[in-house]
Amino acid sequence: MSPKITTELLKQLRQVMRNPKYVQEPVQAYIVPSGDAHQSEYIAPCDCRRAFISGFDGSAGTAIVTEQHAAMWTDGRYFLQAAHQMDNNWTLMKMGLKDTPTQEDWLVSVLPEGSKVGVDPFIIPADQWKRMSKALRSAGHDLVPVKENLIDTIWTDCPQRPCKPLITLDLSYTGISWRDKIIALRSKMAERKVMWFVVTALDEVAWLFNLRGSDVEYNPVFFAYAVIGMNTIRLFIDGDRMMDPPVREHLQLDSTLEPEFKIQVLPYGSILSELQAVGAGLSAKEKVWLSDKASHALTEAIPKAYRYLTPYTPICIAKAVKNTAETEGMRRAHIKDAVALCELFNWLEKEVPKGTVTEIIAADKAEEFRSQQKDFVELSFATISSTGPNGAIIHYKPVPETNRTLSVNEIYLLDSGAQYKDGTTDVTRTMHFGTPSAYEKECFTYVLKGHIAVSAAIFPNGTKGHLLDSFARSALWDCGLDYLHGTGHGVGSFLNVHEGPCGISYKTFADEPLEAGMIVSDEPGYYEDGSFGIRIENVVLVIPAETKYNFKNRGSLTFEPLTLVPIQTKMIDVNLLTEKECNWVNEYHQKCREVVGAELERQGRHEALRWLLRETEPLARVQ
Amino acid sequence: MSPKITTELLKQLRQVMRNPKYVQEPVQAYIVPSGDAHQSEYIAPCDCRRAFISGFDGSAGTAIVTEQHAAMWTDGRYFLQAAHQMDNNWTLMKMGLKDTPTQEDWLVSVLPEGSKVGVDPFIIPADQWKRMSKALRSAGHDLVPVKENLIDTIWTDCPQRPCKPLITLDLSYTGISWRDKIIALRSKMAERKVMWFVVTALDEVAWLFNLRGSDVEYNPVFFAYAVIGMNTIRLFIDGDRMMDPPVREHLQLDSTLEPEFKIQVLPYGSILSELQAVGAGLSAKEKVWLSDKASHALTEAIPKAYRYLTPYTPICIAKAVKNTAETEGMRRAHIKDAVALCELFNWLEKEVPKGTVTEIIAADKAEEFRSQQKDFVELSFATISSTGPNGAIIHYKPVPETNRTLSVNEIYLLDSGAQYKDGTTDVTRTMHFGTPSAYEKECFTYVLKGHIAVSAAIFPNGTKGHLLDSFARSALWDCGLDYLHGTGHGVGSFLNVHEGPCGISYKTFADEPLEAGMIVSDEPGYYEDGSFGIRIENVVLVIPAETKYNFKNRGSLTFEPLTLVPIQTKMIDVNLLTEKECNWVNEYHQKCREVVGAELERQGRHEALRWLLRETEPLARVQ
Repeated sequence: MSPKITTELLKQLRQVMRNPKYVQEPVQAYIVPSGDAHQSEYIAPCDCRRAFISGFDGSAGTAIVTEQHAAMWTDGRYFLQAAHQMDNNWTLMKMGLKDTPTQEDWLVSVLPEGSKVGVDPFIIPADQWKRMSKALRSAGHDLVPVKENLIDTIWTDCPQRPCKPLITLDLSYTGISWRDKIIALRSKMAERKVMWFVVTALDEVAWLFNLRGSDVEYNPVFFAYAVIGMNTIRLFIDGDRMMDPPVREHLQLDSTLEPEFKIQVLPYGSILSELQAVGAGLSAKEKVWLSDKASHALTEAIPKAYRYLTPYTPICIAKAVKNTAETEGMRRAHIKDAVALCELFNWLEKEVPKGTVTEIIAADKAEEFRSQQKDFVELSFATISSTGPNGAIIHYKPVPETNRTLSVNEIYLLDSGAQYKDGTTDVTRTMHFGTPSAYEKECFTYVLKGHIAVSAAIFPNGTKGHLLDSFARSALWDCGLDYLHGTGHGVGSFLNVHEGPCGISYKTFADEPLEAGMIVSDEPGYYEDGSFGIRIENVVLVIPAETKYNFKNRGSLTFEPLTLVPIQTKMIDVNLLTEKECNWVNEYHQKCREVVGAELERQGRHEALRWLLRETEPLARVQ
Repeated sequence: MSPKITTELLKQLRQVMRNPKYVQEPVQAYIVPSGDAHQSEYIAPCDCRRAFISGFDGSAGTAIVTEQHAAMWTDGRYFLQAAHQMDNNWTLMKMGLKDTPTQEDWLVSVLPEGSKVGVDPFIIPADQWKRMSKALRSAGHDLVPVKENLIDTIWTDCPQRPCKPLITLDLSYTGISWRDKIIALRSKMAERKVMWFVVTALDEVAWLFNLRGSDVEYNPVFFAYAVIGMNTIRLFIDGDRMMDPPVREHLQLDSTLEPEFKIQVLPYGSILSELQAVGAGLSAKEKVWLSDKASHALTEAIPKAYRYLTPYTPICIAKAVKNTAETEGMRRAHIKDAVALCELFNWLEKEVPKGTVTEIIAADKAEEFRSQQKDFVELSFATISSTGPNGAIIHYKPVPETNRTLSVNEIYLLDSGAQYKDGTTDVTRTMHFGTPSAYEKECFTYVLKGHIAVSAAIFPNGTKGHLLDSFARSALWDCGLDYLHGTGHGVGSFLNVHEGPCGISYKTFADEPLEAGMIVSDEPGYYEDGSFGIRIENVVLVIPAETKYNFKNRGSLTFEPLTLVPIQTKMIDVNLLTEKECNWVNEYHQKCREVVGAELERQGRHEALRWLLRETEPLARVQ
């Protein structure tokens, strides 16, 4: 990796920062956040503005360019990568380290008095704008919205915004029609006495209308906004994809519908002016509901007194609780995914000893096996295929410069997943194709104990996921080990592999309580810098539990693993497991045999079936 | 309990709400919060204004009186008590229930347009003022400060503010001189670039100057404020107690000291004008540090741009980490406390079968035994002495109307503690003086498993207490049981029995990470409404732990029980314990024998010693 030379680009950016064509008054600093106008985690190439100006293309980072300086804030996952990808024009601000200033503090320390700091109001979320603006104002500066994105003005070969065809999902996949979703949404709106709801997150638009797209890699979403009134539906979307007959039929665009279900299709770019018109037409007590993560631009379109902002929208919350059609789809998807991984691991077991399989080859092979499965659409994220020391890099993605050959002497960690039309998968398995050391087995077994502690946990209705995080760490903690990431995230149903509002993390974010039907990952790990990484990840479904006393009818919950891929018994030190844990592993493997075995049989994949049977032999605990 | 008749009082209050002698403009509503001007949890009789106006004297509640209505917000602990103590003039607002409006929403729904809502700015914390004021303003009303407390104007027989003599603590108790505490505080102030620090919490003033008082029952504090500058110390305190020679000597009031350690003593009531003078004299970049829970009145004295507000003050954080002198004192206090409880339980075992011991008698007896111990000062909170169904009322305090006789057929729960000059105790034991049922033993054992899970937990440095809360619940959860309170609170050293900034709770408050030297309680429970309550509480000290891998030198922590009182083995279903748990109980009891046994011997309390030895016989687990 050689750094991107940015001297000329920064010079151009500093010119437009003073150019009255783009800015009312010169701005002394310009902020380039990571996200797009929908605050997406995964973004389209045309939205990779921070990577364009700096060279640093990690998933998280904020660039700030002043007349004299250029600085990049990113977190511990990316210190090395950012340092490699950026040239000397840039100062790396290592977030999380004690002496690293916040963006606000740094700005205050370098700016001349009474400076203007510019930012694209469509890219910065309202809550961030508020915080930053307050901090700057109290130091005598101003945060100002710059309507035209200044990076776009100098990005001559900027790729076009994708505008790919849509996929319509029928009831057998979604369980609820878009019409019924609108009815449910309006009833939530009525409860909160709001007249309008603005859908800004791409996965929320996709979920609401039972549509999928492929505008962003890994996330089956498409660029659109929606504004739902009590009697109107406005969908802001570009391209001739709305001329596609199945889409028109799905949305009933050409039918005579009750007016309150008639979808008005408007250009993507007209959202701001339409929302401003809504804002201008509001009468007393008519509120507009927005996510507090919606862009500053859209939030500002509604006068402050009329805004109703919440951290999670009613769509986000409804989407998280999967219905039967969705959970059945997720089950099917996970069985197919398990078939692909049994094939892969069987293949790796044969090929790795030959010394010809690299991390990239293994990742490609995983994709090949997955793509043979019915309704496969694409991967759900960039495959983490890592062996030996690369396994300790938590967000590793093999590239030619780092590509390592798998061997019988190193641990191999594969964190991968796919989008199928019936569901989204995300699974991590850690394997050894030779003989693991006692220490490697010890660490693996602690991670497994943590995985089981979460998966088998029973907890009362209304419990928030973050209260389960320590269960995953307890066995590691007892020996003085830990891992520096959360334990789980929400997973979409043929949607984003990371979604709110629930999760399992030591970070106390405002997660919503777990409910039956929610789907999260359970993925504790352990990482030994410079030598290996271990992670065991299943996607699990929240289900009602049966308990002796049932919390005085408050009800209780537990998890059912949807992922059904063997956990390598060779890596387990059985003597470190309790009887209960040992039984959990054996029952889990029994289920893998029954469910995935039947599907391997059906698909005629006999060699992989034999591998599965071998890998799921019951553990025997020495008494 | 018959309700207090408040018709006349409310009439008088409504008159003064319109009386230009007290209010610039009439206020349409008046808020009467629970606290005092220091936001204390325990308050002096003169500060029980909410109880005076309403009759409801629980520890938490806010009254709001409008021209037409009188309403009381309180939480689930007090629904019954408040309903009994208040007459028909009052509407009970049950906090935590879905349909209960917030104070703000209720005010907006009942007030005429453009109303003024009054509150004593000394009683309302700055953060609450901010929230309430914003909500009212957005509905067209105004929150206004009413300088003279309107309750005080109608409370003709209001008790005087206590002004009792002070206790000076020497280095053998405090470990650090007040002078060194001032130096450490000033260094924290320099780090944050603040010029002034305002001490508003009573326990912080007491800790800083190594003084104690008895102005408030159970909390050894005294009414005072302090303002610490980089070169000045101002102490705001009333009464001739500052004329007491030991106090003068302790504070070196008559010595020739370097000017920066010279304490200027000012009248308690002059804090506002002095602080306003400080505020008026600030030049650019001179900040004043206050807790964000300080009163609105004091916060407003400092112009907004000069305020530096934090949830926890540097004193709060320093105070939480006990030094060797303090932990040694706490150890001594807990041994004496254990002696008293061994005496008590031995006595109860003999007396309960006679049917003459009531909850009140038992509580008094506990106090009697404690008061025989060296350096006993007072109780640290109102003793919870409860048998049978009363045990299920978490904050029960026996009064003649509810006083129940202890018997061999019911579980007895005693949650009690004391202030000794060398430390503060807080211990709960649950006993049966006959034969407990299998179900009672089962529940007790789950609670014990939770207690042990926290007490024996090992966790990395930097872990926040709330991450340990679920450990205390896991065994209960597995069977569908739970308890609706947190697991632990910080404990002061001869100071408040509840103190910040750490704790162990499922509620995600902004707790600070646990550190070696911090002291918290570990008190899971289980409550069966109408039949019994179980709680097992030890005060535990955070200590470094030894682990196999030591978190890559991040270091690890665990707890050491300071409380050394036997846990009734009769209540334990040994077969539900793991071997590790069983060993924990046996080792704990062995320590009780050694440490408390030696002290019982020393004090010649042979009968209690025999009781201790009997109660600490090792458990034998059936293999």
